[in-house]
Amino acid sequence: MTDLYAHSAVAPRSLTGQPSRLYHTPLSPFSRKVRLVLAEKRIEVELAEERYWEQGPELFRRNPAGKIPVLRHDGMLLAESQAICEYLDETVPTPPLMPADAAGRYEVRRLCAWFDDKFNAEATRPVLNERVWKKVQKTGYPDSRMVKAGLAAIKAHIDYMHRLLEERRWLAGRTLTIADFAAAAHFSCLDYISDIDWDRSDLVRQWYATIKSRPAFRSVLADQVPGLHPAPHYAQLDF
Amino acid sequence: MTDLYAHSAVAPRSLTGQPSRLYHTPLSPFSRKVRLVLAEKRIEVELAEERYWEQGPELFRRNPAGKIPVLRHDGMLLAESQAICEYLDETVPTPPLMPADAAGRYEVRRLCAWFDDKFNAEATRPVLNERVWKKVQKTGYPDSRMVKAGLAAIKAHIDYMHRLLEERRWLAGRTLTIADFAAAAHFSCLDYISDIDWDRSDLVRQWYATIKSRPAFRSVLADQVPGLHPAPHYAQLDF
Repeated sequence: MTDLYAHSAVAPRSLTGQPSRLYHTPLSPFSRKVRLVLAEKRIEVELAEERYWEQGPELFRRNPAGKIPVLRHDGMLLAESQAICEYLDETVPTPPLMPADAAGRYEVRRLCAWFDDKFNAEATRPVLNERVWKKVQKTGYPDSRMVKAGLAAIKAHIDYMHRLLEERRWLAGRTLTIADFAAAAHFSCLDYISDIDWDRSDLVRQWYATIKSRPAFRSVLADQVPGLHPAPHYAQLDF
Repeated sequence: MTDLYAHSAVAPRSLTGQPSRLYHTPLSPFSRKVRLVLAEKRIEVELAEERYWEQGPELFRRNPAGKIPVLRHDGMLLAESQAICEYLDETVPTPPLMPADAAGRYEVRRLCAWFDDKFNAEATRPVLNERVWKKVQKTGYPDSRMVKAGLAAIKAHIDYMHRLLEERRWLAGRTLTIADFAAAAHFSCLDYISDIDWDRSDLVRQWYATIKSRPAFRSVLADQVPGLHPAPHYAQLDF
């Protein structure tokens, strides 16, 4: 079940002569966060699709936690999206995706936890579980109450982001950081199935339009999940 | 419901003239991780107990995520335990609790996520929910299947830690790091209710005995949860 292809949209760059390889799942926000950071830093990577829910032995050999994404890179197998992204930022410093000051880095880490923990638990996981994974993994039919609760949570989160963006150019401050990619990774998964209400905040829409137009986003916008077509506006830069 | 006291066990040290204050819950592993890092760095802190499950407006004023711990420090309100601990390590560098090299820092972050995400979901949360929080919050009786699954998970995690400690002095490598405090925070919560099988691994027992004997651990070992006495060996350094 391995599906390999190169990031043709970004200039190739290899640290070791051997390309890096990311074991991922297309609509995993954690995989997408790592893909976006890799692409922003122009690190060439092969993508290998992993059906993590089948819990094969290879999954646990690569990562004893049994989770994706896993990045084979620099002769190591790296796991946990935040640990991977910070490692990439420290070892490939251009362009920097963490602020230079401790308070700025704190804010990036707080917001990454916001999206990867809170937003994921309240919005991404329930909505994708019900509307995507139950279908792909053949484990049942969507529970409309879970979907409804997830969609309500998305609205509350958009309002929070709106308040941040009233005072900041990017989510964590003046510069683009890992926090923007973490948030955009979750939003792009939900936008694939058209579950973001873009009319709720002009600031959040503008933020997403700006990040979506970066070359780093092209690979994510080209994703196709078998049997599940993306929303018509999903890959459009003007939406 | 504010319960303030000072860390009398560690030498006082204040960055701003005003003591820092940690809004916490006694058997929260995330609160304990921050308490341990604060104490190891000899940062004086007041502890204010927060009944986060009552979801009062003050909780959300301090942290819009509605979670504890929250640290008032350096004129800021800091949330998310990993972001707080890394901020403390960057701004109060002695003693260092992160390695000097990027691969070492990666491993600390991977293991912090291991304990705060995987271990928490499989062990700490189900066991404490059933055996502590349902009683404290008066929300029902323990579900023995959840407790049993949690206790089985603890054994599997001890085996994983055993393998790490066969090759390393501390969990992430040669030096004591935030990863050890993250793990010890979870273990200490479960040990309060006697749910760690210390006979399973001599290496894990020795690791915990070593970290438990540090002055930084004294405040955690002095915790008392009303209506719930700690296991007799909980505060003993020789157990």
